[in-house]
Amino acid sequence: MLIVMRHGATEQEIQRVVAVIRDMGYEASPLPGAQRTAVGLVGNDGRVDASRLEGLPGVQEVIQVTKPYKQVSREWKPDPTVVRLAGGVTVGGSDVAVIAGPCSVESERQILEAARQVREAGAVILRGGAWKPRTSPYTFQGLGKPGLKLLAKARDEVGILICTEAMDPDGVGWVAEVADIIQIGARNMQNFSLLKAAGRAGKPVLLKRGMSATIEELLLSAEYLLAEGNHDVILCERGVRSFDTATRNLFDVSAISSRRTNASPRPTQITALR
Amino acid sequence: MLIVMRHGATEQEIQRVVAVIRDMGYEASPLPGAQRTAVGLVGNDGRVDASRLEGLPGVQEVIQVTKPYKQVSREWKPDPTVVRLAGGVTVGGSDVAVIAGPCSVESERQILEAARQVREAGAVILRGGAWKPRTSPYTFQGLGKPGLKLLAKARDEVGILICTEAMDPDGVGWVAEVADIIQIGARNMQNFSLLKAAGRAGKPVLLKRGMSATIEELLLSAEYLLAEGNHDVILCERGVRSFDTATRNLFDVSAISSRRTNASPRPTQITALR
Amino acid sequence: MLIVMRHGATEQEIQRVVAVIRDMGYEASPLPGAQRTAVGLVGNDGRVDASRLEGLPGVQEVIQVTKPYKQVSREWKPDPTVVRLAGGVTVGGSDVAVIAGPCSVESERQILEAARQVREAGAVILRGGAWKPRTSPYTFQGLGKPGLKLLAKARDEVGILICTEAMDPDGVGWVAEVADIIQIGARNMQNFSLLKAAGRAGKPVLLKRGMSATIEELLLSAEYLLAEGNHDVILCERGVRSFDTATRNLFDVSAISSRRTNASPRPTQITALR
Amino acid sequence: MLIVMRHGATEQEIQRVVAVIRDMGYEASPLPGAQRTAVGLVGNDGRVDASRLEGLPGVQEVIQVTKPYKQVSREWKPDPTVVRLAGGVTVGGSDVAVIAGPCSVESERQILEAARQVREAGAVILRGGAWKPRTSPYTFQGLGKPGLKLLAKARDEVGILICTEAMDPDGVGWVAEVADIIQIGARNMQNFSLLKAAGRAGKPVLLKRGMSATIEELLLSAEYLLAEGNHDVILCERGVRSFDTATRNLFDVSAISSRRTNASPRPTQITALR
Repeated sequence: MLIVMRHGATEQEIQRVVAVIRDMGYEASPLPGAQRTAVGLVGNDGRVDASRLEGLPGVQEVIQVTKPYKQVSREWKPDPTVVRLAGGVTVGGSDVAVIAGPCSVESERQILEAARQVREAGAVILRGGAWKPRTSPYTFQGLGKPGLKLLAKARDEVGILICTEAMDPDGVGWVAEVADIIQIGARNMQNFSLLKAAGRAGKPVLLKRGMSATIEELLLSAEYLLAEGNHDVILCERGVRSFDTATRNLFDVSAISSRRTNASPRPTQITALR
Repeated sequence: MLIVMRHGATEQEIQRVVAVIRDMGYEASPLPGAQRTAVGLVGNDGRVDASRLEGLPGVQEVIQVTKPYKQVSREWKPDPTVVRLAGGVTVGGSDVAVIAGPCSVESERQILEAARQVREAGAVILRGGAWKPRTSPYTFQGLGKPGLKLLAKARDEVGILICTEAMDPDGVGWVAEVADIIQIGARNMQNFSLLKAAGRAGKPVLLKRGMSATIEELLLSAEYLLAEGNHDVILCERGVRSFDTATRNLFDVSAISSRRTNASPRPTQITALR
Repeated sequence: MLIVMRHGATEQEIQRVVAVIRDMGYEASPLPGAQRTAVGLVGNDGRVDASRLEGLPGVQEVIQVTKPYKQVSREWKPDPTVVRLAGGVTVGGSDVAVIAGPCSVESERQILEAARQVREAGAVILRGGAWKPRTSPYTFQGLGKPGLKLLAKARDEVGILICTEAMDPDGVGWVAEVADIIQIGARNMQNFSLLKAAGRAGKPVLLKRGMSATIEELLLSAEYLLAEGNHDVILCERGVRSFDTATRNLFDVSAISSRRTNASPRPTQITALR
Repeated sequence: MLIVMRHGATEQEIQRVVAVIRDMGYEASPLPGAQRTAVGLVGNDGRVDASRLEGLPGVQEVIQVTKPYKQVSREWKPDPTVVRLAGGVTVGGSDVAVIAGPCSVESERQILEAARQVREAGAVILRGGAWKPRTSPYTFQGLGKPGLKLLAKARDEVGILICTEAMDPDGVGWVAEVADIIQIGARNMQNFSLLKAAGRAGKPVLLKRGMSATIEELLLSAEYLLAEGNHDVILCERGVRSFDTATRNLFDVSAISSRRTNASPRPTQITALR
């Protein structure tokens, strides 16, 4: 951690920062520059509370060097994660697992037909919403529990795994009973009550990136799942919001390699779920 | 609604669109142009299902003319809404109601002191989180129910109303019992299960704009509250995410007048809650 | 063109819009709806001046149906463009032409070595800046004309074509004399004086997308080049600015197919030039 | 400057960084942490070339502590700048100077009438484009030099100063001869050839923020003007591009105070020029 002092900060202010760092149990190392002094905090174990330093007189900003996420980091677990599902299907291994399906479950005929078509086209997991987060309260909100049963029927009849969205802690329980993967939608990526419930549900979770979430925020939301003991997390890049309405979402293809190299040991299954 | 045909769409394709519109119970009015034809749908009552038209051959795009929100619109209710709270405090009337307070409730001493200070400075409502949505699972998440009790104590001792955030349907119940206003946080603006619960809680709701929510999406989230019968909605502009990290949020000051003139009859109490 | 009236616009206001449209030489077709009336302008030849209609009483907005670009559109020229360069190199045909090289020309040794390396790796065109647009005035701004000579030397010795940036109308002349392709940088995508000069320079132009330019704006900047008679335009997707600083630019991979199908007949050579 | 090493960087790699810093003439101060080591560069005079350090093995990132701008900074010149114009008009002093006028000069009658109206409404400077940067090549591009003459006539007859845009180095000369303030448009904020010309023109410059320029980039563009010796710079906040199309630009009201406190001694005259 680096505490950057204002230009013109007094020697007293600098010494105060040094004293507080020592009081917190770390070492302080002042770095004078031509324009301003910065003070390095030595020995950061990831538990330093920056707010205590940010408020001190003469402090301009506090720069974090340590990453705020832990268990999702390759520094914590260098190997890529492989999520193992029923029937030998894996996500994150050498095979590419295709997840496909309609926006929502509408009828038995529709979902069985969709399951057959995506199976034939190579998909191993069917997705479709029993509950749908809708921008407007007047739009079709999904069939609910009967939709879950139709998904289960599609799995049995067609031989394909199923992935569907849970929208609240109660829904996590219902989805976990039936589906192979619990989906957390983009609008709920920072619904932390929901993440905690999903982290304790005992089923793999597919976590979609929020429409303006940074990669770091996505990884921290995944960290919520791991912190509850669930290590079977699949990250889903669905594109972010931009100034251009020519495409519905701006697909952030570079985010995939960024996660692979810098940060995440979780399987990065990127699918254009919409 | 306007159905724009592709350049080079055949007469047959245009006639098909006209026929489908009539079959849906509306009138169709073709508008030929030099580059392409558009077909107007006449008599739209706000319930037209565009998806049936979007998929037809030769159709390039469907342009909505009718706004998707209803009850929040000034076209539905032209007068500004005034939310009436205890002790004669109003939000949305001619007085400016200041809501202020710390990020979270940390201790009895801290919240009582904060309540006194903001009261003295002119605030009529105290805000402070008993539950805090945190990007990282390792950050302080709030005191929970004991925090609610401390807020109630601050109200009684200092004489100030209280506003605090609910993060899930269970939390809505607890907050509604104690607080004067239920706050929905920016990260939960499209947590529709939470919105439905808050809409049925019988207390005014302060709805914060999501970090990349359009004004239309904010109004549609408010519509969820009104659709459940709760008309006491306070919209909160807290700034949006931008490419510039020089300011934490980009405060969208123009959004306020935009809501006043075009769309919303709800009281637009804009506070920089952080 | 569709003129959308406000909710509650009077019959007189609607008739005024109809009258103005007729006065402009087009036909008007009113489309009454349950919430509001819209008036279609029939026979739009792409030269309608919307501002005359936008200001009329009772008008809420004017929706453009006709695309503002012409010559870059597939509706104007359906075949993909192939830019033919010296030595049988083509951009936009069935071969993928790789353009590669350093940010800027620094020395003879550096640029010759770079030319050899990219040639060996499969590139057919060398890029490197003789003039560099720099955010700060205190950063190295390029070698200028001597840099151009070094690029020409690299072409002669290594056998590779060269592409380099022009930053102002004078520079266009110097670059056009020497280089095979004139590059317009992202920061200058809407420097219209520069675009006009490049459109008249008689050499192919590689046009980089501005850091927050919509696809439509990119195509309109290309239209400036075509409007001056230069049809050898190569569009370059270099990524756009976003809220996330994890990647320097957000590479908009979907923009490529969007241009191919909807709009542009120009060769879309997408390279990650930085 | 802080050089952050990768987790797992070897002692040898750290020593290499230390050696290079010393070779560059600065002192190095390693800061070991629990997750990784960082190396502070001590004595930075603002001329350190980070690229030499970024490429070293084991280096994860280089964090700048020193601000890249100098003359525009309050650290360089603490007093606010006051731009003094003809007739005792000042921008940046205690009076608020209103600049107003139409988008472009269209005719003598129009600009004289506009000048009178804005004068009466309290404006002291008239703005209006003789040259207009237009997204489409088919839109009216301005009257050019005759437009400049009409502006001069408005000044003489109405008694108001004039501000108008220059779009290229030649145009800077013409505008500087006639106008009281040279305007640099948002699309040209990083047209560095234009900035250099304006910096040498001997007239005050109004610099509009680019549509997705950070505050730092705006200040660096202003630095181009100051670096050429022109200290009469007026910064113009015109709003930035966002994901929401409800408002044309997102007016960044917080940017004003940000510039005042952190960085800029230049007069921050914020006008909604469009």
